[in-house]
Formats: sequence, C-alpha cells, structure tokens
Amino acid sequence: MGTVYSKSEKAYLERIGNRIRELRTEGDLSQEKLAFACDLDRTYIGSVERGERNISVINLRKIAKALKIKVSVLLNIEE
Amino acid sequence: MGTVYSKSEKAYLERIGNRIRELRTEGDLSQEKLAFACDLDRTYIGSVERGERNISVINLRKIAKALKIKVSVLLNIEE
Repeated sequence: MGTVYSKSEKAYLERIGNRIRELRTEGDLSQEKLAFACDLDRTYIGSVERGERNISVINLRKIAKALKIKVSVLLNIEE
Repeated sequence: MGTVYSKSEKAYLERIGNRIRELRTEGDLSQEKLAFACDLDRTYIGSVERGERNISVINLRKIAKALKIKVSVLLNIEE
C-alpha cells in the first residue's frame, strides 16, 4: 500500500478483511467464486481479506451484493 | 473520476454524499469545520458530498468519526 496508514487504520482494514472472509466461508464460497460473482480479481479479493487494501465503497458494494448482504451490515464491526 | 461507474453506482455515491451533507448540516458543521475535524481537504469533502468520489473506507471512517457516528450507520442508506 502506497499510502501510510495508522496502526488503528490498518487494524480496521484487517477487521474488514476478516469479516469478508468469515461471510464468504459461511456462504461456502471460494475466493474464485466470490471474485467471479462480483467481477473483481481473485488476487484483489485475497488482498482485501488480508487487510492490505483501503477498499472503496463501490468495491465494497460489489462484494456485499455477491455475499447477499448490505454494506452497512458488512461494516457493522468495531471501528 | 477516471474510472467509469454504472448509473446505479453513481446514484449510490450521490446518496452517500447527500447522507454526509445531511449529517454535517444536522451537526451545524461547515464543510471547512468537518474537513478540519477529519484532517481532509475542504474541496475533497465538497466533491464527496456531490457524489464525485468513490470514497475509501479509511476516509469514510475519518468522516464518520468527525460526525460522531459509526461508518455502518452513515452507510445505512439504499444500496
């Protein structure tokens, strides 16, 4: 990641990634299947799940739609 | 915006912008005061409110903190 994030920002991105992984595995989806469902690259999904991406709302919306939940539900985590 | 967004994606970004403006004005904050509170540029806040930015979660988190609400509450809008 080019931009420098604070420790708490990095932790927030990791919580988002963990949340997406948790929801994906609950839905028995592989990273490939999730990536295909939301028209994003499989390696991008992997980097998001590892908390390496300051993900945009449009990509969050794509992932949430593919996981069949609302973005606000996906982001209902510790901030 | 470099990237091309679908009509529904643009509408989503506009709803986010309107939501931020609504919350900001409810809190009697000017764009300048909100920008200062979240360490972002005033013109950036203006472009987000006009729906011109595919805003990242870290910037959303900064804005939500300055508005004293959760990101998930801020994003509790039509998707």
